[in-house]
Amino acid sequence: MKALEDKILREGTILPGNILKVGSFLNHQIDADFMMEIGQEIGRLFANDGVTKVLTIEASGIAVALAAGAALHVPMLFAKKHNTSNISGEIYQAKVHSYTHNTDYHVAVEAQFLKPTDRVLIVDDFLANGKAILGLTEVIEQAGATLVGAAIAIEKGFQKGGEELRNRNIRIESLAIIESMTDTDITFRH
Amino acid sequence: MKALEDKILREGTILPGNILKVGSFLNHQIDADFMMEIGQEIGRLFANDGVTKVLTIEASGIAVALAAGAALHVPMLFAKKHNTSNISGEIYQAKVHSYTHNTDYHVAVEAQFLKPTDRVLIVDDFLANGKAILGLTEVIEQAGATLVGAAIAIEKGFQKGGEELRNRNIRIESLAIIESMTDTDITFRH
Repeated sequence: MKALEDKILREGTILPGNILKVGSFLNHQIDADFMMEIGQEIGRLFANDGVTKVLTIEASGIAVALAAGAALHVPMLFAKKHNTSNISGEIYQAKVHSYTHNTDYHVAVEAQFLKPTDRVLIVDDFLANGKAILGLTEVIEQAGATLVGAAIAIEKGFQKGGEELRNRNIRIESLAIIESMTDTDITFRH
Repeated sequence: MKALEDKILREGTILPGNILKVGSFLNHQIDADFMMEIGQEIGRLFANDGVTKVLTIEASGIAVALAAGAALHVPMLFAKKHNTSNISGEIYQAKVHSYTHNTDYHVAVEAQFLKPTDRVLIVDDFLANGKAILGLTEVIEQAGATLVGAAIAIEKGFQKGGEELRNRNIRIESLAIIESMTDTDITFRH
């Protein structure tokens, strides 16, 4: 998505340790109009796949998942992190390793919101090592639902997650894939 | 908002301790199309107030705030909770007491995203004791920005938050106000 690449080049900043900050429009401050365009693009990519539900993880996945859900006119479900204090009844959950915080956490959804008849599209803001998305695929498996694929705003192509997920024959659609980053430069994969 | 009241009556469930569960459409699973309608209603209520930014708190405020930002065509900013590990540079922050978890936490935003020229609309999914919204008003004060008001999806009118905020001359627009709840019944304030 050319508009997203342009936005990354214009507004993104690079911090030491291959950290790309896009907090001006994607995951702290959110450019609402632009986020709805991202949702439309995801909707276009998965328009013919019979998606019945969009699944993401709190917190930074919620905005892009809502935009995708609105474009596809299907409900969005966000998995909760850490503990399950706000979750009641039967749940599906999976353990996820966070490299950022060097810790494990759980992602959980209430079982009533994922059915074997659901065709689920995973949506997230970033794909790096892919562990969060793997956790969501486990949740979908537990529900007996069908995984349609995953739509990602920004994939860090120089980390392993994208390749690992594609090797599992999961359809991954990343709207912008960063091939490489230096302190001053970003190169996209096309 | 009649459609929201109907949705609460149709899909909401009441748990012991005056807990209203609306996780089927508002804050776990989200009815994306309906959430965009909620955003439109908020946009209509604040169409003439020169809002430049919508402010909320992660995680359950993000969806309704994005919908409001999209309706008003302004950026949305979500305050982060707990720690500031994903936040860099100068920040504005405030302490908030959570009655649900009987603990204090901090809400923080990067200072670069709130300017003295900003006219800020606070948006959240729930208003009960009002402490989260009070924390956000502190953040807005620190930035020297102008608080336009707060738009809330569901206010628990039988808790004190709404009254306390209105007594501070803050404009509060709640799309549904629950006057009282029993184990089997919900009464709305009109």
